[in-house]
Amino acid sequence: MRFWLSTCLLAALSAPVMAQSDDSLFISKMADEILTSGKSYENLRVLCKTVGGRLAGSPQKVKAEQWGLETLKAAGADRVYLQECMVPHWTRGGKDQAWYSYTDASGKQVKVALDVLALGNSQGTGKNGVKAPVVYCANFDDLEKQKDNIKGKIVFFNHPFNEKFLQPFRAYGEAGVYRRSGPSRAAKYGAVAVVIRSLSGSTDNNPHTGATQYDSAYPKIPCAAMGLKDADKLSALLQEGKKIDLFYQSNAHFLPDTIGHNVIGEIKGSEFPNDYITVGGHLDSWDPAEGAQDDGAGCVHSIEVLRVFKQLGYAPKHSIRIVLFADEENGGRGGEAYAAAAKQNNENHLFALESDAGGFTPRGFGFSMSAEQLAKIQPWVKLLLPYGVYQFTMGGGGSDIGPLHQQLKTPVCGLVPDGNRYFDLHHARNDVFENVNKRELELGAANMAGLIYLIDKYGL
Amino acid sequence: MRFWLSTCLLAALSAPVMAQSDDSLFISKMADEILTSGKSYENLRVLCKTVGGRLAGSPQKVKAEQWGLETLKAAGADRVYLQECMVPHWTRGGKDQAWYSYTDASGKQVKVALDVLALGNSQGTGKNGVKAPVVYCANFDDLEKQKDNIKGKIVFFNHPFNEKFLQPFRAYGEAGVYRRSGPSRAAKYGAVAVVIRSLSGSTDNNPHTGATQYDSAYPKIPCAAMGLKDADKLSALLQEGKKIDLFYQSNAHFLPDTIGHNVIGEIKGSEFPNDYITVGGHLDSWDPAEGAQDDGAGCVHSIEVLRVFKQLGYAPKHSIRIVLFADEENGGRGGEAYAAAAKQNNENHLFALESDAGGFTPRGFGFSMSAEQLAKIQPWVKLLLPYGVYQFTMGGGGSDIGPLHQQLKTPVCGLVPDGNRYFDLHHARNDVFENVNKRELELGAANMAGLIYLIDKYGL
Repeated sequence: MRFWLSTCLLAALSAPVMAQSDDSLFISKMADEILTSGKSYENLRVLCKTVGGRLAGSPQKVKAEQWGLETLKAAGADRVYLQECMVPHWTRGGKDQAWYSYTDASGKQVKVALDVLALGNSQGTGKNGVKAPVVYCANFDDLEKQKDNIKGKIVFFNHPFNEKFLQPFRAYGEAGVYRRSGPSRAAKYGAVAVVIRSLSGSTDNNPHTGATQYDSAYPKIPCAAMGLKDADKLSALLQEGKKIDLFYQSNAHFLPDTIGHNVIGEIKGSEFPNDYITVGGHLDSWDPAEGAQDDGAGCVHSIEVLRVFKQLGYAPKHSIRIVLFADEENGGRGGEAYAAAAKQNNENHLFALESDAGGFTPRGFGFSMSAEQLAKIQPWVKLLLPYGVYQFTMGGGGSDIGPLHQQLKTPVCGLVPDGNRYFDLHHARNDVFENVNKRELELGAANMAGLIYLIDKYGL
Repeated sequence: MRFWLSTCLLAALSAPVMAQSDDSLFISKMADEILTSGKSYENLRVLCKTVGGRLAGSPQKVKAEQWGLETLKAAGADRVYLQECMVPHWTRGGKDQAWYSYTDASGKQVKVALDVLALGNSQGTGKNGVKAPVVYCANFDDLEKQKDNIKGKIVFFNHPFNEKFLQPFRAYGEAGVYRRSGPSRAAKYGAVAVVIRSLSGSTDNNPHTGATQYDSAYPKIPCAAMGLKDADKLSALLQEGKKIDLFYQSNAHFLPDTIGHNVIGEIKGSEFPNDYITVGGHLDSWDPAEGAQDDGAGCVHSIEVLRVFKQLGYAPKHSIRIVLFADEENGGRGGEAYAAAAKQNNENHLFALESDAGGFTPRGFGFSMSAEQLAKIQPWVKLLLPYGVYQFTMGGGGSDIGPLHQQLKTPVCGLVPDGNRYFDLHHARNDVFENVNKRELELGAANMAGLIYLIDKYGL
C-alpha cells in the first residue's frame, strides 16, 4: 500500500514539478543577476547620500522624485511619469531642545540635557519653549488615575516594547498608541506637553520620531520622543520620587499643503496591458536620517524587480507598475491618490506588493486576499526557499497599497524581512545607508522578483 | 470518505499534539526568560570589552578562561572546571606593514599604503621586510601557467567570493583554499611572499586574517590578507600592465606550544548522569578584534542554555556539558582534547551542538547523524518555528565537536543563523560587540535551549 500511495503521489506531483523546474531556473537566473550585477545597493547609496531625508513637502522630496524618475528610466521602464497629489508639509524648523532639572540628595540643583525629536506632525512650542513639572505615566490607565494632577504639567509616557513578542512589529503596534494618541489623551486633562519613550527595543539612546495624530477636540500640545536610555534614567528618577521640571523647545509647524508626486515606472503587459500589478515602496522618509531602511530599501527593491525583468528580456503578460509613493510617513496621501486614480480610470488591478519593512534578509510574504488564493500559491514557497523566503502567511500588505485593497478589493502583499533590527533604526538618525547590508537588500529584491514573476505567469 | 480520513488523522495526531503542547509551553517559557531577563548580551559585552581578542596561548585567553569559569558559575553550573590541553602559540608581534609602488603614466613613482593583516600561523618577514615584484594570480590554474615567473616574486591571489552562492559559507569554502594553501603552492615555485584577497564579500576595506597551513615540503613564506577595495585597486593596476613592487613587513612568529584549557560547566543528569549532551562554542578568537560574532556569540549562547535550565528549575535527564573550547582558530586542539578525554573515560555522548556561525537571527540547525535520527526529530521544527528556526537539514556540526563525531560517532549539530553578514566581520577588526544585535543573539540561545530540551527529553 505504501508503494501504491507513493507511486500515486509521484504521478500526481510530476507535472507541476516539471513546470516548476522552468520557473525555478528563471528565478535562479534573476537572483544571479541581482546578486552579481544588481543595482539596488548603488541606487540606495545615491538616494541616501545625494538626497538624504525627504519628508513630503520638503525640497529633498522633490530631489528624490527626480532620482526616482531617472533611476526608473535607467532600469529600463517603458514609461516613467509623476502622479500628482496634495501632501502635508510639516517641518521640524531646526533642532529640538530639551533638558530637565531636579534637586539631588545634597540639595544641589542638577540639570540634564535630553536628546529629543519632535514627533512628526506635532505643534512646536514657540521660541521660548515650555517648562513644567513632569508626571510619569506608565500607560493610559495610569493617566486616568492621575487625571486630576495633569493640568499644567508635562506627561511622560514610558511604555516599553514588549520583549516577549517574537515579532517586533507587534510590540510596535502595541506601544504605538502612545505616539499617536498620547498627546491628545494628555491634553484632554490639561497637559501642556507630552514626551514619550521612543518606539524601539534598541540598546542605544537615539530618539525615534514618527507621526502623531491630534484629536481636534483638545488643544494641540507639543510632543517629542526621547531615547531608551534617557527614558530609563528619567523614569528611575521619577520613581525615586524626585520632583522634575522639564524644558522643551521646538519650532515644529505645518506649512500649507503642497504638491507632491508618486513616481511611477511601467512595463506594458504583453498579453493584458490593461491589467496591472503594482510593486512599490514609499519615497518619503523622516528628516533626521537618510531613510535607508525606511523606505529607501523598498524603493530600490521595487525598481530592481523592473530592472531584472528588462535585463533578462522577460516580457510580463500584465502591466507592471513600480510606484514610489509620495507620502507614507505623515499623511498617506500618495497611496490614496494612486487608488483614486485607479478607480477613476476603471483600471483592473490584479495584485499589489509593497516593501516597507526594511532591506533585511527576507523570511516570507504576508498576504491579504482570500484563503483560496493563498492556498493556490502556497506551493510557490519552495521556489523561493533558496533565497530565504520560507512562508506565505495570511495578513499583510502595506500602508500605500491599503487603499487599493480597500477600495478596489485588490489582493495585496507585503515583503516580510527579518524584523529584529528594524526598530533599532526606524525613524531614528541611524537609519543610514551604512546600516543596510548589500546581500540582504538584494535577496529582498530577488524574492520580490520571483513572486511577481509567478503571479504574472499564473495569476491568482 | 474525507470525513473519515480527517477523523482518523485527528485521532492519530492527538497524542503527539498534546505532548507537544507541553513542550511548546516550556520552550516559550525559556524564550520569555531569555528575551526579557537573558544574560547572553551582557555576558558578551563583558567578554568583548574586558578581554577582547583572545588567541590560544595569549594572556587574553587566560583572562577569557577566568571569565568563562565565573560566568558559568554565575549561570548556575553544578560543577565548573578547566580541561587542560597543549595549544599553539602564534603571535602577530605588532602591526603588519605593507605598501606598493609603481610608475604612473607621467613617469612619476607612486607609493600606496596597503592595509594588511598577516595570516594566522604565518611566518613573519624579519624586521627588514620583503620587497619584490607582484605576480597576479586569479587562481591556482593561473599560478601553474605562470610557474616559471614566480621565483623571487610576491604572488597575489585575488579569488573573490562567488556572489551566486546563496550560502556565503559555500563561497568561504571555495575561496578558503587560497588562504590555507596559497602560500605553500606559491613557495613551491620560489615565491618570497603571498598576499591574498580577504575571504569576504563585504563592501568595506577591512582585511580578514585566519589560519594558513604550510606544507612542510616548501619554505614557509610570509603571507598576508588585504581588504577587498585594495584588492580591486591592486588588481586593476596589474591588469593594466603596471609593474608593481610590493613591500611587506611582519613580525609574526610562533612561540613554543603552551598550556590552554577548555572551560567546562556541567549540570548533572537527573536520570542518566553518565550520558552527556555537549553544547559549546570556542573561546579563542583572532587578535585584531573582540571575537564578538566569532565566537563570543557561541560561548554566550551555550552558557545561556545552562542558565535558562537552572533559572526555570528544569532538571535535565542527561548531564549537560557546556564547553568553551580552547583553540578552534589556529589548531583545533581543544576539540581534540575533549574527544580524547571522552574516549579515555569511556563517556557516553548522546549528542553535541556547536554555535560557531555567529549570533545572527537563527534560521535552522544542521545535523550530522543518521537519516532515521533526523526524520525522527523533524516534527520538532514546528516547536521552534516561532523563534525563527524553520528547517533541520542534513550536514553540519562544528570544528570543535568534529572529533567527537569522528571518534565516538556522536551525532552532532550546528546552529545555522542568517549567514549574510557573517563574512563582513569574520576575522576582521570590525568583529566587535557593537556589531551584535541583542535580540538576534538571544533568539539563537532560545532555539538552542529548545533543541537541547527536546533531545534531552526524547532522545534521538
